[in-house]
Amino acid sequence: MTTEKTRRRLPRRVREREIVDAALRVFAQRGYHAAVVDEIADLAGISKPMVYLYLGSKENLFVACVRQAAEALVTAFRQAADSGDQPQLRLWRGLSAFFAFVAEHRDSWVILHRQTPEQSEAIAEELERARESVMAEVTDLVRRGIDEGGADARLGPADADFVASALVGAADSLTDWMERNPQETPERVALRLMNMIWVGMRDVLGGEMWSPPGDSVG
Amino acid sequence: MTTEKTRRRLPRRVREREIVDAALRVFAQRGYHAAVVDEIADLAGISKPMVYLYLGSKENLFVACVRQAAEALVTAFRQAADSGDQPQLRLWRGLSAFFAFVAEHRDSWVILHRQTPEQSEAIAEELERARESVMAEVTDLVRRGIDEGGADARLGPADADFVASALVGAADSLTDWMERNPQETPERVALRLMNMIWVGMRDVLGGEMWSPPGDSVG
Repeated sequence: MTTEKTRRRLPRRVREREIVDAALRVFAQRGYHAAVVDEIADLAGISKPMVYLYLGSKENLFVACVRQAAEALVTAFRQAADSGDQPQLRLWRGLSAFFAFVAEHRDSWVILHRQTPEQSEAIAEELERARESVMAEVTDLVRRGIDEGGADARLGPADADFVASALVGAADSLTDWMERNPQETPERVALRLMNMIWVGMRDVLGGEMWSPPGDSVG
Repeated sequence: MTTEKTRRRLPRRVREREIVDAALRVFAQRGYHAAVVDEIADLAGISKPMVYLYLGSKENLFVACVRQAAEALVTAFRQAADSGDQPQLRLWRGLSAFFAFVAEHRDSWVILHRQTPEQSEAIAEELERARESVMAEVTDLVRRGIDEGGADARLGPADADFVASALVGAADSLTDWMERNPQETPERVALRLMNMIWVGMRDVLGGEMWSPPGDSVG
């Protein structure tokens, strides 16, 4: 363990970032309850009291991890999807960036995907915020896709919300599939998903409907 | 509170079922950690020591809740999907039954969807088993759909697994959308999802591929 005395002086922002990076690794590996702040302090090369001084509590540390992981994920998605191209191409690039992020930042993804210490409201709220910011990015792209696709005017915000919700849920679930199929690149996984969802959506936008033969749906 | 003495004698299976029904309500309402066994005993009209005698521990009680909820969900899906019809129709009926189950059995769905007390391995394993049994049902239907669709022979188990994983993830996520859109019936939600996913899949099976213009995908 490196003691505080031997450490160089760092700006607060940089030091906090180092602590949160260490916390991400420990929480991802041990789970929220089993993780101990001593190990996080060790890994960050700082004393335990200093960790509390900077971040306040184990719960706050976890909230900071969720926030950092979500920001990194949304930034990766947004940067990849941010171009002058068609919405479908932007969505594909965004999804590719999402799967690449999951493959490259396992610790962040474990925090966002698997960790939900239910007794902490602060953590539940931060996870909810994270999900909402991802949803907002995807919903925006889907809405542009609907608009620019010259689609049926009856399609409204609830429809874009539906597609985005299905897409985010599918992508979330498919990260486990990607783990089971390591030969598939993030780009290929995104392409498969585009083929399942976008192609279907385009047909629906074009007026083609699947309906159960003989059944009437209210 | 009804005391044990005033209760009629019941077969063990029936009594356990009553306790688990009570536990489902309390766990769904309070969350795992805040739930207390006293309240479960009260609701089941039985003494607390009897609850422990029948189910062993709070953790075991929760595991029993997960198991019962998952069995009820899988049974509802399987019964609806069990017919001599085409796979697509069976899938739609299964999905309708899934969304109807979620709408009608909120407590069970809260247990399966939102509750993951991460520090209990027994609970995590039971939730994993629940997810796998739902996935197995859906994967089986998708595989039949691929086979009977006379699809490309290159499509294999990993492809059916991909579609099933995306479908289960999308359906999971869409239960929140359904809650935000109470005017939509479970049948309509299932129909929307079929239109998004099955139509796309059918095109892909028919050899139509979406590919990013100008991009090459490795």
